[in-house]
Amino acid sequence: MFTPVDERNSISIDDARKVIKESVDKLTLKTENVKTSEAAHRVIAEDVTATNDFPTFRRSGVDGYAVIKSDFTDFPKQLKVVGNIPAGADFDRPIVSGEAVRIMTGGYVPDGADWVVMLETTKMINDDTVEISELQHKDNITPIGDYFKKGDMLLEKDTEINPGGISLLSAFDIQTVPVYKKPKVGIITTGSELLKPGEKIVNGKIFNSNGPLIKALCIENGAEVVSYTQIKDDSNLLKQAIEDLQGKTDIIITDGGVSVGDYDIIADLAKSADRLLFNKIQMRPGSVTTAFVDKGTIYFGLSGNPGACFTGFYLYVEYALRHLQKQTSRCIECLGTLNAEYTKTNDYDRILRGKYKITSDHIDVGRVGGDASGNLNNLQRATCFFEIPRGDSITPKGSVLRTWLLPFK
Amino acid sequence: MFTPVDERNSISIDDARKVIKESVDKLTLKTENVKTSEAAHRVIAEDVTATNDFPTFRRSGVDGYAVIKSDFTDFPKQLKVVGNIPAGADFDRPIVSGEAVRIMTGGYVPDGADWVVMLETTKMINDDTVEISELQHKDNITPIGDYFKKGDMLLEKDTEINPGGISLLSAFDIQTVPVYKKPKVGIITTGSELLKPGEKIVNGKIFNSNGPLIKALCIENGAEVVSYTQIKDDSNLLKQAIEDLQGKTDIIITDGGVSVGDYDIIADLAKSADRLLFNKIQMRPGSVTTAFVDKGTIYFGLSGNPGACFTGFYLYVEYALRHLQKQTSRCIECLGTLNAEYTKTNDYDRILRGKYKITSDHIDVGRVGGDASGNLNNLQRATCFFEIPRGDSITPKGSVLRTWLLPFK
Repeated sequence: MFTPVDERNSISIDDARKVIKESVDKLTLKTENVKTSEAAHRVIAEDVTATNDFPTFRRSGVDGYAVIKSDFTDFPKQLKVVGNIPAGADFDRPIVSGEAVRIMTGGYVPDGADWVVMLETTKMINDDTVEISELQHKDNITPIGDYFKKGDMLLEKDTEINPGGISLLSAFDIQTVPVYKKPKVGIITTGSELLKPGEKIVNGKIFNSNGPLIKALCIENGAEVVSYTQIKDDSNLLKQAIEDLQGKTDIIITDGGVSVGDYDIIADLAKSADRLLFNKIQMRPGSVTTAFVDKGTIYFGLSGNPGACFTGFYLYVEYALRHLQKQTSRCIECLGTLNAEYTKTNDYDRILRGKYKITSDHIDVGRVGGDASGNLNNLQRATCFFEIPRGDSITPKGSVLRTWLLPFK
Repeated sequence: MFTPVDERNSISIDDARKVIKESVDKLTLKTENVKTSEAAHRVIAEDVTATNDFPTFRRSGVDGYAVIKSDFTDFPKQLKVVGNIPAGADFDRPIVSGEAVRIMTGGYVPDGADWVVMLETTKMINDDTVEISELQHKDNITPIGDYFKKGDMLLEKDTEINPGGISLLSAFDIQTVPVYKKPKVGIITTGSELLKPGEKIVNGKIFNSNGPLIKALCIENGAEVVSYTQIKDDSNLLKQAIEDLQGKTDIIITDGGVSVGDYDIIADLAKSADRLLFNKIQMRPGSVTTAFVDKGTIYFGLSGNPGACFTGFYLYVEYALRHLQKQTSRCIECLGTLNAEYTKTNDYDRILRGKYKITSDHIDVGRVGGDASGNLNNLQRATCFFEIPRGDSITPKGSVLRTWLLPFK
């Protein structure tokens, strides 16, 4: 009925991610237009270019007087003040030799003027005369199109928009943007041991903690959770739950039912799928994490074990969700320096939940709470993973280890 | 009417943050109950403790047989299989000497049993007899309360809940949690030069890009934006806009009107406030960033200049928003190594918008796009700030600089 773990072909973490990416790359991503003001952390689906030169007029970089440079053959020089251009105002005619116009930072530099002198180097002689004691070495004028010419790239296709990008689009009055739709996710937690919220605790049963974990992680990572169900260990119920999601999701995540016990049902499902991606990974916890593709939907079978579920989500599901938005994982892969000896050994690479601290010359990583994979106590506190390499020797303090810094932590 | 910048007392970035924190600490934070499933990134306002022992029953760590250890005087040993406990099931009586019960990982260990042998070391002899070839060195039983005793701390007051915390609360069926209310923010952008979306571009006018920036940054950083207005440079309009927000906000952010020009109105407002926090900071851009407290509301006057507005938000407003949620800033302060010489010098510390890259032994920082503070082009792309210290010498490549890694980038 299922492939026992022992008979499964195990692959590395990197190879597992590689096949996920290949599967995601085959999908055609749908797009939609959203309001720019609501586009933070959505990914732009087409190049967006400047709709006009920017600035659109010659802008003063300082507070002072717009003048004509050739007027300054000697200093101090007195000029006739013929106007005052506050922020937001235009000026109705070009200035001519001998004239100056009062101007604000960011203000419109009138035609004819080719220099703006800073207020600090000027003195009012009377109501309509200003004396200028020196010219600065630069003209203090930002020319039309100095920052962007019409047609220049503003935000490239596949850029994740952040508040800075919203600001940039707003400067061009671009009020909507084409973005990829949020990946749609269905979550099915399986387990006859699972209680529903509010039920009475009885021997053998536990409350569902992985379902809420997966749901919160999906939302945090930009997915739209279109369905969330909890079912008993029963192949028919699972098949029905999956059928109900037909065509409605990009990803289906199941939790539980991936191990070698009598009631494991995901392996069975994987066997009849269009393509098995993997059903065993060379890592602990979560070696039995399974992924497959069927009818254009990517399935992840996470372990029912809290630590393994948590680890599997960040390493594989987050990775897929991000690639479904044309982004790389937000888990920053780097090297961490172990802050205390780790004595346990394993045939598989062990991914420990830990905490990191950025110091002046390295990233310090260490354990946080127990690493029993059934123990929930460090899921809140963990801010990174680090990898204890397989083998039969202890891992000394100071070891430099593969590390992933977790996002939103 | 206003204090010219020259007459203002300048303070350091750290001192500015210190007075912000002092002001926030004086406020009484309001709390509310929210659903645990919707509590991600909310901050818990009371200690939450375990409502029961966890696990609530003796749980098997492996798939195998529950047995009585004292039965094993020699190996192999045959035992009578008297039952099968799948996940979620109870068992109705204690087992006695000579008996074994089939059990799943996570399953209920029946009374009487004190050891679980792994399936891999057993062999079925017939329908109701199992032969056991060895005992593992540990009992494979997680005792009641092994992870948490009733009353143990689950999440301490002032913890920012993440999906891991949601998972933990769900394991105890804690369906609501007391959290601090989101900081309420009112945003007022001032400037007679500002167009409204959809208006026609004319000389002297620009679209409002700082307002959308500030709004998106507030939302990203956990605030509730209760009001967003755009007004002309006019003291009366500003006073009216502020009056309209009376009692509705924890923070009011104004943008523009903080410089030394004729139309600057924030300085005036600050003068009549209960307490001026600062109106000049020893940094560029944004030296005129202003903050004050009036009637229990904290006001931030950000510079109208895009680069200065962006920098001021992260260094001061984000800092305040986080402290209003009993959290430290999410901008990770560290040391970065400059990847190219920087030749400009300044009397003030210059905060440059840059990009960082974590390498094996340092954090590489460098410029991204132009650093003209009027240029919007790098607000989207900047992932960090780094500080070019004041002085008249160039900053060589390899300089180790104060750096802030920006969140959500």
